Amino acid sequence: MASDPIKLGDYLFTRLLQLGVNDVFGVPGDYNLRLLDFVVPAGLHWVGNCNELNAAYAADGYGRINGLSAIVTTFGVGELSAANGIAGAYAERSPVVHIVGTPPRQLQSTRALVHHTFSDGEYRRFAAMSTHITAAQTNLTDAITAPDKIDWILQQALIHQRPVYLEIPDDMPGVLVSSVNLKSPIRIPPAISPAHESKVVASILERLYSAQRPLIYVDGESRSLGILDQIDTLVQKTNWPTWASVFGKGLVNESLPSVYGLYAAAFGDKPAQEYFESADLVLTFGPHYSDTNSYFWTAVPKNAAAISFKDDTVQIENDTYRDLSARNVLDQVLKSLDETRTVKASGPPKVEVTTSDIQDTDIIAQKNFYRLVNPIFCEGDIILTETGTASYGGRHFKLPPKSRLFGAVTWLSIGFMLPATLGAALAKRGQNKGTGASNQTVLIIGDGSLQMTAQEISVMIKEKLDILIIIINNEGYTIERVIHGRKQAYNDVPFWRHTQALNYFGADEEHLKNNVFTARTCGELREILRKEQVRSGTGVRLVEVAMEREDVEGPLLWVLNKQLAEEQQAKSG
Amino acid sequence: MASDPIKLGDYLFTRLLQLGVNDVFGVPGDYNLRLLDFVVPAGLHWVGNCNELNAAYAADGYGRINGLSAIVTTFGVGELSAANGIAGAYAERSPVVHIVGTPPRQLQSTRALVHHTFSDGEYRRFAAMSTHITAAQTNLTDAITAPDKIDWILQQALIHQRPVYLEIPDDMPGVLVSSVNLKSPIRIPPAISPAHESKVVASILERLYSAQRPLIYVDGESRSLGILDQIDTLVQKTNWPTWASVFGKGLVNESLPSVYGLYAAAFGDKPAQEYFESADLVLTFGPHYSDTNSYFWTAVPKNAAAISFKDDTVQIENDTYRDLSARNVLDQVLKSLDETRTVKASGPPKVEVTTSDIQDTDIIAQKNFYRLVNPIFCEGDIILTETGTASYGGRHFKLPPKSRLFGAVTWLSIGFMLPATLGAALAKRGQNKGTGASNQTVLIIGDGSLQMTAQEISVMIKEKLDILIIIINNEGYTIERVIHGRKQAYNDVPFWRHTQALNYFGADEEHLKNNVFTARTCGELREILRKEQVRSGTGVRLVEVAMEREDVEGPLLWVLNKQLAEEQQAKSG
Repeated sequence: MASDPIKLGDYLFTRLLQLGVNDVFGVPGDYNLRLLDFVVPAGLHWVGNCNELNAAYAADGYGRINGLSAIVTTFGVGELSAANGIAGAYAERSPVVHIVGTPPRQLQSTRALVHHTFSDGEYRRFAAMSTHITAAQTNLTDAITAPDKIDWILQQALIHQRPVYLEIPDDMPGVLVSSVNLKSPIRIPPAISPAHESKVVASILERLYSAQRPLIYVDGESRSLGILDQIDTLVQKTNWPTWASVFGKGLVNESLPSVYGLYAAAFGDKPAQEYFESADLVLTFGPHYSDTNSYFWTAVPKNAAAISFKDDTVQIENDTYRDLSARNVLDQVLKSLDETRTVKASGPPKVEVTTSDIQDTDIIAQKNFYRLVNPIFCEGDIILTETGTASYGGRHFKLPPKSRLFGAVTWLSIGFMLPATLGAALAKRGQNKGTGASNQTVLIIGDGSLQMTAQEISVMIKEKLDILIIIINNEGYTIERVIHGRKQAYNDVPFWRHTQALNYFGADEEHLKNNVFTARTCGELREILRKEQVRSGTGVRLVEVAMEREDVEGPLLWVLNKQLAEEQQAKSG
Repeated sequence: MASDPIKLGDYLFTRLLQLGVNDVFGVPGDYNLRLLDFVVPAGLHWVGNCNELNAAYAADGYGRINGLSAIVTTFGVGELSAANGIAGAYAERSPVVHIVGTPPRQLQSTRALVHHTFSDGEYRRFAAMSTHITAAQTNLTDAITAPDKIDWILQQALIHQRPVYLEIPDDMPGVLVSSVNLKSPIRIPPAISPAHESKVVASILERLYSAQRPLIYVDGESRSLGILDQIDTLVQKTNWPTWASVFGKGLVNESLPSVYGLYAAAFGDKPAQEYFESADLVLTFGPHYSDTNSYFWTAVPKNAAAISFKDDTVQIENDTYRDLSARNVLDQVLKSLDETRTVKASGPPKVEVTTSDIQDTDIIAQKNFYRLVNPIFCEGDIILTETGTASYGGRHFKLPPKSRLFGAVTWLSIGFMLPATLGAALAKRGQNKGTGASNQTVLIIGDGSLQMTAQEISVMIKEKLDILIIIINNEGYTIERVIHGRKQAYNDVPFWRHTQALNYFGADEEHLKNNVFTARTCGELREILRKEQVRSGTGVRLVEVAMEREDVEGPLLWVLNKQLAEEQQAKSG
């Protein structure tokens, strides 16, 4: 039975909606307007961003919460503005569908000298650039192949959990295409179990039973492996000590008794480090060993103890077993696992965090700020900590169940977190829809990072999202100051009146009255955080906290002290 | 005699300073901090931008006024954010040196998994991307070759008048290199005159003497050809009717009696179009025939009448003569030219622009706004009109001598003009330094474009530049509305309180009192523009003018009417 043909624009957005994409980010441009006509009629919501980089960041944030996201830009100017955001989604595995409206086919085939090109008839430059930062690319050039190409590219985003690139010439959205595919949902193809899978499962079980000092280490690619539920089961079945990387934080339920939160190697709790380093089994999920996600590789488990579950491979000590699905292997392991044969491992004592030592007259500093903020988080909230001091402090938060944390993992593009907050909040609102639940999205960001993408606050306001923004004002790029150029002017930023942000960016006058705060002392911050409207209110709220220019903790303090020692040496030398 | 070796960072910035680059744009990042240490000691000024795209736009603006500019970004995150700005500089020929601080050589050669990569050991992705949008690329990997590589890449920027890409690993700025090259200035190599040059010169002279209805057409690549002074001489010697394209506006002195300003084909003055289309000689300089710079190619001179001076070639009717320097050929032509043998061509009457028909009670509209603003421009000022209605209106300005106009040429990346204003104003300040002269830089920009890059206003304030910003608030992307989706929400933008910008972005409280204005009627606008502080004051001043959502003129009105007719047809059909 033949299906009625439908317009290509309808086909595309119907497919996205089937995959749970309810909101589309982007900026209109004259090569994508005809495509944008199809967004709302297909039942999706158009989120117009202030610029394309912000749109890409927002789509990345949405993708990490929702499992898939979409951004529409225009040829050349729009897509290149988004490039850094798309690259970040690649680095940290967010499945973003980057849809680019390109000039009509007739202009391209005649090599016409049009705007948004270099006026030289060459139309393929930007697509060539995209191959370096996306997992797959395609171009919808005709009606016959378009539906299959769309299905293929969306499937690639799901399989790789990375961005993909989809070109749509401006004369294509209204072209009729077959709708027959729409009846079959797009799915990740089921993994095939190779002959060696059972051997691997047996080896893993053997190690699980023989381990005397085991632990579970959850890294961030566990999310893209689709094994979070299985990790949760494993943690509960074994009750083994469990840590996460920065990237893994929030992916494992920190309210479980055996879960410790972040593993920070030498920069964290000493007993935790001792346990970790003497472990005879480290079950490692979704490893992602960039310098910044692994404390300069000091948190990487030793091969001798590790069993690692990665994309397509399982590594047991030094042996790599390929073409395995982590999900399938874990499924087998969990089915066969006899918990009575595993050791009752008790990890180091948990470090209790208190705030009783913090005086109301204390100035706000890295060492007290995060402890004061932590209690406001609730189940299901999303907390975003921008690269810089915010991410170093925020990674020690104790997270409530089902909450999520965004921190500085690998891409570390400052400015990312603010639009990502918009994207994450929209995704969460979509998830909560119809459930009666509501959640806060909390952004903690330094003033330097904020200046990169601040205008996206206006979109948060327009979208009426429940977002708390806490700005750490330390007068510049403190993280760069401690790395190098402590007193150099290049690490300063222009002076802004941050408390004017909601006013400038269009919040209601009534809203402005009770939603903008500043704090310099811990007492002031405590009072602000006690307010119901701040903790769990509606709309965008803004709190500016002042901190010292060189106030850092943890690894950053170590880096700062190194610089100070070098200065001292230079002086005395 | 051997010269003392110097540090690579010193070498680079000394070279840039020798070439007249006094200001360096960019954003610090941990792979470029050691390089930034050398900026100020070498005698250059560091302009820290709010983000890298803004920095690239600013560098583009600076390059167009100054002849060369530099931007420093960091590996991956920074350079990709700048990509769209660099591409625009390529499309419209601004020589921008894009300097990227990359990870130290040791990390790259060991393929270490560091931040700002995809954590996969691959370091060459972003350099590969840059090959599509820059004229030349190099990477400073050792002390021996570094000075020559620097000289070569800077020369490429000058030769091609396009951006170039220079990678500097983070451990290189302090490395000692030979300083011997520094004694020889970097220059564009002199063009060699081929045997056929004299034949071409003779052909041109013959055509100049035989022409009965000649004209001169100045397009924007005349600037990169370095022939502006020669064009000026030719215009004054012949006194022939002279027009410019959008890209060429401001490159020829509009106060000369034979200069008409913009040629807009069917969208301009009818007698001008008649003269242009019946001309038997169109001396065309620096042609750049994108759709947007040529009224959809209707302003392109016919081959039968045209002699075109381009990069490396001169075209006479249908014959292309290669390997010629436009500068050399023009030199020969001007030396031999006997003006008494050329026709006294009188062009069409000039259209006088008046404002006497504009009533104070009229609302501000496209049809009156530009006429009211035009009189404030003075000799040497720079006027920037953002893509959208501002550029369509501003291209009809009558420009004072030595002023410059930036309009929508080909790249048309909205958001460009605001940071470009910063860059152009800094370049102009450098040019005026020590002369006692001062100039205004005037930006006219729509609210949609403004939202893309608004934060750069804070850098204008920090740099204490004399900039007048006029915001056309028509509640969204009016240019997109008239192209398509007249009533579609995707062409709306979030509501901002524009008059709060200077406050939010840190202007002194005292300054705020007399430098922020709004106008809805022509009388209000007149009164504001009469103020000395607005016309020729100091610091950043801001005027918000309200216009109707679909208020357009010229080609945009034609496009809007087409859309309205289609709507009407759809209704009645």
